[in-house]
Amino acid sequence: MSDFYERSIIIHEHLRGKIGIVSKMPIESQDDLAIAYTPGVAGPCEKIAADPALARELTIKRNAVAVVSDGSAVLGLGNIGPLAALPVMEGKAMLFKEFANIDAWPICLDTQDADEIVETVRRIAPTFGGINLEDISAPRCFEIEQRLQDLDIPVFHDDQHGTAIVLLAALINSCRILGRDPADLRVVVSGAGAAGTAIAQLLRCVNFDPNLCVPVRDIVVCDSRGAIHKDRDGLSAEKEMLLSFTNREQHTGTVHEALEGADVFIGVSKGGLLNGEDVRRMAADPIILAMANPEPEIMPDLAREAGAAIVGTGRSDFANQVNNVLAFPGIFRGALDAGASNIDGAMKLAAAHALADAVAKPTRDMILPSPMDRSVAPLVAEAVRKAVNPS
Amino acid sequence: MSDFYERSIIIHEHLRGKIGIVSKMPIESQDDLAIAYTPGVAGPCEKIAADPALARELTIKRNAVAVVSDGSAVLGLGNIGPLAALPVMEGKAMLFKEFANIDAWPICLDTQDADEIVETVRRIAPTFGGINLEDISAPRCFEIEQRLQDLDIPVFHDDQHGTAIVLLAALINSCRILGRDPADLRVVVSGAGAAGTAIAQLLRCVNFDPNLCVPVRDIVVCDSRGAIHKDRDGLSAEKEMLLSFTNREQHTGTVHEALEGADVFIGVSKGGLLNGEDVRRMAADPIILAMANPEPEIMPDLAREAGAAIVGTGRSDFANQVNNVLAFPGIFRGALDAGASNIDGAMKLAAAHALADAVAKPTRDMILPSPMDRSVAPLVAEAVRKAVNPS
Repeated sequence: MSDFYERSIIIHEHLRGKIGIVSKMPIESQDDLAIAYTPGVAGPCEKIAADPALARELTIKRNAVAVVSDGSAVLGLGNIGPLAALPVMEGKAMLFKEFANIDAWPICLDTQDADEIVETVRRIAPTFGGINLEDISAPRCFEIEQRLQDLDIPVFHDDQHGTAIVLLAALINSCRILGRDPADLRVVVSGAGAAGTAIAQLLRCVNFDPNLCVPVRDIVVCDSRGAIHKDRDGLSAEKEMLLSFTNREQHTGTVHEALEGADVFIGVSKGGLLNGEDVRRMAADPIILAMANPEPEIMPDLAREAGAAIVGTGRSDFANQVNNVLAFPGIFRGALDAGASNIDGAMKLAAAHALADAVAKPTRDMILPSPMDRSVAPLVAEAVRKAVNPS
Repeated sequence: MSDFYERSIIIHEHLRGKIGIVSKMPIESQDDLAIAYTPGVAGPCEKIAADPALARELTIKRNAVAVVSDGSAVLGLGNIGPLAALPVMEGKAMLFKEFANIDAWPICLDTQDADEIVETVRRIAPTFGGINLEDISAPRCFEIEQRLQDLDIPVFHDDQHGTAIVLLAALINSCRILGRDPADLRVVVSGAGAAGTAIAQLLRCVNFDPNLCVPVRDIVVCDSRGAIHKDRDGLSAEKEMLLSFTNREQHTGTVHEALEGADVFIGVSKGGLLNGEDVRRMAADPIILAMANPEPEIMPDLAREAGAAIVGTGRSDFANQVNNVLAFPGIFRGALDAGASNIDGAMKLAAAHALADAVAKPTRDMILPSPMDRSVAPLVAEAVRKAVNPS
C-alpha cells in the first residue's frame, strides 16, 4: 500500500488537481464572445426564465453532479475534514468523467452539522442534475440523504447504496456459480455503518416494491459489540430499524458466533477480523466478501484454505474486486438521462442485476466485471433508464 | 442584438453546457485507479490532514474559482433567478479558462437572502482558491462581499470591481491621449448600483493606501432621482457612504444638470439617457464612457457629433469596448498564483495600470486592448502578483 501512497503523492504534486474545466466552445472572435457571453447569452437566460425546465436543455445542469462531502468518514482515515478529503472527491469526479462522461465537481463542506449540510446542498442544487454524497459518517449520512429526497434531482449517498448495489451483484453471481437461491441464504454482515445498513436493506428488499425483489432469508448485522439483537441497550434509531427486519433467530453473541452455519459473510468493518476457524464454522462452501480496506477482514488465501467457495475483497490485487466504480457512474448516467428526480429501489435493483449480467460467464474468480471494463457503465445506465421509463 | 440572442440559443441547445470537466490523468489500468483513487489517494489525504496548506499543492484548490450568483441582477434582465442565470455563469467560467487557464465552476444559489448567501459561500469555500461573486443586486452585494473578506481566499464581486478597474484603465489612457491629469477631472457617474459605487470608490481612492493613488478631483454620482447630495432624504447606507467623498459642490439637480462643465461622463445606468445637448453642456473635449447594455446612454456617433473627444461603450460593435473580460481573468490568475487571501486596493490599481499600459500607443479609437487580446490577462496577472509580493 505504501508504494501506492508514495506514487499517489508524486502524481498529485505533479498534477495539482486531477480534474480541470474545459471550454466546449472556442472564443476566437468578438462574435464568439457575443454569442457565448454578452449580449447573446441573454437569449438562453430569457428562455429559462420563462420555462425553468429548459435549464436541462440549455446548460450544464443535465450532465453536472456535485460530489459533496464533509470529510467526516474518508476512506479508512476517518474524520480528516473537508480539505484533506478533496483528493478523494477529485478522484470520484475523474471516475464520473472517465466511465460515464458526467461532469462532476467536488464540493467539500466546511461544516459537519447535518442541518447545515442539508441546507447547503439545497442552496447549491440549481447548478446540478444530481448530488453524490460521499464519505459522510453514520448516522448523519442517513438523515442527510433522507431529508434531501424531496429535491427535484437525485441525491445518492454512494457509500451506502453504491456499495450495496455492487455487493448484491457479487452475491447474485456467486449464487449462480454455486447453484443457490439468494432468498435461501443466511447472511452475516459485519459493520453497521453506512454500507452495512444499506446492504442489509437492499438484501432484505426494505422499502422496495415486493414484485421486484425476493428478500434474503435471514441477515444478522453485527457491529463492534456483536450481533444487533432486541435485548441490547442504547441502540441508535438506525440499528433499531435494522433490527426490525434482521436477526430473526435473535443471535446475541459475537460476529464469530453469528457465523455458525452462515452461508455468506459480508465484511464492511475492519481488517483481520476473521481467521480460518471462523470460516470453518460457516455452512459448506461459504461466500466471503471481505471488503475492509486496505486490509480485508480475512485474506483471500486464508479464507480459501479454510473452505470458502468464493472470496471477494475491495482490493485490486486480488480476484473479485468489489469496487463502487462499477456502479455509481452508470447509475448517475441513467438517472440523469432519464431526468429522474431520485434513485429509487427499482433503479438500484436494476443496476445490481445489470452489473451481475455484465459478466457473461461468472466463475469463482470472476463474480464481477473488472472495474476497468468500460462496457459496464453503459449497461448499468441503460438498465437504470429502463427502470425509470419501462417503455 | 436579437440575432445574437437567436444564435446563442442555437449554440446553447447544441452544446448543452458550455463547459465540461476533463480528467487530467488517464485511467488505463488498475494501477492508475489505485494511484488516482483508492487506496493510493490516502497518501495525499494524509499529507493535507497533517498540513492543510498543502491542499494548494496537491489538489484543484489553487486553480479553482467558484462563480457564485443568486440570479438577482443578471445582465440587463434583472432578477431572473439562479437557473436562468446559469448560462451567464457558464460563460464566465469559459472566459476564466480561455483567458487565464483557471478552472471555474458556476454555483447558482437557491436563495437571495444575504445571510444565507454568506453562510453558503463560507461552507463551500474549502474546494476553491477564490470566489467570484456575480450578478448579485445592490445593496446586498456590498454587504455580502464585505462580510466574506475574512475568508482565507479572495472574494471579489466582479460587477463592482472588475468594471471599476477596466473603467479606470480607460480613463488613464483617455487622459494620456488628451494630455490631462486624472486628478483634475470632474466626473459625473450615472448609476449608483454595484458598478457605479465601486467606480466612485476607485476613482477617489477610497480605502486605498494614499501613496498609491491620486484621487480624482470631484465626482458627482447620480441615481434615477439625480445627484446624490446631502439634503436628500432616505439615502441608503451605501449612498450615504458615497456622499462622504463625492459631490463636493453639492449639486442637487438631475444628471443632465450635473453634466454642466464636467470633463467625464461615466454611464452604468440605462440606455438613451443622454442626447447631444447633454454633451455640449460639458467642458471642452469631454470623455464619454456610456456602458449601459445593450443600448448605451448615448450612441457613439451622436456623442462625437456633439463634441465628445473620446467615446467608449460596453459594446463589441463600436470602438473602445469596456468589457470586464479584460480584468477578471488576470486579476484572479495573479491572486491565485500569489496565494493572496483577498484582492485589495493595491492589486486593483496595479491591474488598472497594467491594463492601460497594455495598449502601446493609445488613440481615441483604442483606449483599451481588444477583449480578444490573449496577451492582456498575463500582463494583468503579473502586475497583481507584484502588488502582492513586490520583491
